Amino acid sequence: MANSASGESMISRVARVVAALDDDHPGLTVSGLAEVTHLPIATTHRIVRDLVDIGWVHKDADGRVRLGLRLWEIVNRGSVARELRTVARPYMEDVHSVVKQHTQLGILEDGDVLFLECFSRRGSVDNAVTVAGRLPAHISSAGLVIMAFAPPAAQEVFLRANAMLVPDLRGRLEQIRRNGYAVVDGMLHANTSGIAVPIWDKSKFSVAALSVVVPRDPAEVNLAVPALLIAARGISRELGFRDPQRREAYAHEAATNPRNYQSMERRAG
Amino acid sequence: MANSASGESMISRVARVVAALDDDHPGLTVSGLAEVTHLPIATTHRIVRDLVDIGWVHKDADGRVRLGLRLWEIVNRGSVARELRTVARPYMEDVHSVVKQHTQLGILEDGDVLFLECFSRRGSVDNAVTVAGRLPAHISSAGLVIMAFAPPAAQEVFLRANAMLVPDLRGRLEQIRRNGYAVVDGMLHANTSGIAVPIWDKSKFSVAALSVVVPRDPAEVNLAVPALLIAARGISRELGFRDPQRREAYAHEAATNPRNYQSMERRAG
Repeated sequence: MANSASGESMISRVARVVAALDDDHPGLTVSGLAEVTHLPIATTHRIVRDLVDIGWVHKDADGRVRLGLRLWEIVNRGSVARELRTVARPYMEDVHSVVKQHTQLGILEDGDVLFLECFSRRGSVDNAVTVAGRLPAHISSAGLVIMAFAPPAAQEVFLRANAMLVPDLRGRLEQIRRNGYAVVDGMLHANTSGIAVPIWDKSKFSVAALSVVVPRDPAEVNLAVPALLIAARGISRELGFRDPQRREAYAHEAATNPRNYQSMERRAG
Repeated sequence: MANSASGESMISRVARVVAALDDDHPGLTVSGLAEVTHLPIATTHRIVRDLVDIGWVHKDADGRVRLGLRLWEIVNRGSVARELRTVARPYMEDVHSVVKQHTQLGILEDGDVLFLECFSRRGSVDNAVTVAGRLPAHISSAGLVIMAFAPPAAQEVFLRANAMLVPDLRGRLEQIRRNGYAVVDGMLHANTSGIAVPIWDKSKFSVAALSVVVPRDPAEVNLAVPALLIAARGISRELGFRDPQRREAYAHEAATNPRNYQSMERRAG
């Protein structure tokens, strides 16, 4: 593979260009892209031209570069996210129709919660979550519930990284395990609560979280918790979950992938 | 950019590997990938290794290669599909809660309808549509409604390509324009109907279609059509649509992109 003078592979430079288009800007010009990616402008031009040729990006009439639908289509058909979303969506709609507030599916990715799906309707409470958005694990109910049911070694890393940020984090995780769900009141918005339950597949660890964001009110929590628990059981069953009493000794990659905890390690120092 | 002996660019070879993972297989081995892509096995190995390095694919414990969450995240945050989906989803939920059947958002892409979003609940009727799935434009209500409101030149290409496949296609498009919506009975499944309405943005052409799949029953059509028309107005308004009486002279790329009609041209011969 052709490397640049710096030894960086071509594909890594392409990845930088594609990732730079993953932002809130309405597309970037080639010179804007070169600036953001710190690539030479000639290199950026060549990469953009090649990406246009294969249909992964297109150039607007005003010269701004955007990711194209072809890449969106490939990735949404082929990604590992697909099975989990496909299984979860009907159950999420059930929850959403009962709770009538933001209903979300999150997975641990590189130390954050990455949200794979989010149902919202107009008039819902404030919410920090979007599809393909992220939240740090320690400030979201989804992250806390995934960590409460994560492998013990991963929990220790998480506790070390975040102990200074969240009072009595160890006690909170223990309580989440006892309850079977996590409630986070007013952390991202003062007037809302996040509520999350774990989803398992064949492993004995949480592979994802199903969560809602509701007005901060005990009645809302009382409605949401059973709805979430029932839905999470349905999703887990379809994913091949077996009864915890008969847990098997193998673990799912998503729960044990060391990359998920490396960034926490780095933060923990 | 480094080219192979055949003159194919590196990025084009990478694109073939990524696209090969866009399928219904549960991941492919490197040798399986080499076979599908017709690339030398050493080249395939190098590309997979580089893609693993940047986190776009990962290898399962059994050596099968899959697209990774990192790429899913980038593309779902950065794609041009995002604005349309984000605007449309709340309106789609409204339709879904009233019609209680599959509710879909489709766009014309390379001669097919590519579905960007699909709401379904368990117990709904049979449906051929999935998120990021495609249907030929001439057999789906979404495709017919988009074509009925497409630029005249594109309509002519469409008519030439599909006249042999759909009886009185020109008459059908005229009727769809008169009605303002398309109904397709029993084409994909004998016991269902597809109903679609156009979505406009600032252009004077349809840029997308909002559709439902319902049991084949006039009462269902009578319920769905007004629900769809109201929702499509809301979406179009948010996209910047102006009253058709005051149409402006500029057109949206999605409606006029020649690539969307090239494959129809090819079929038309």
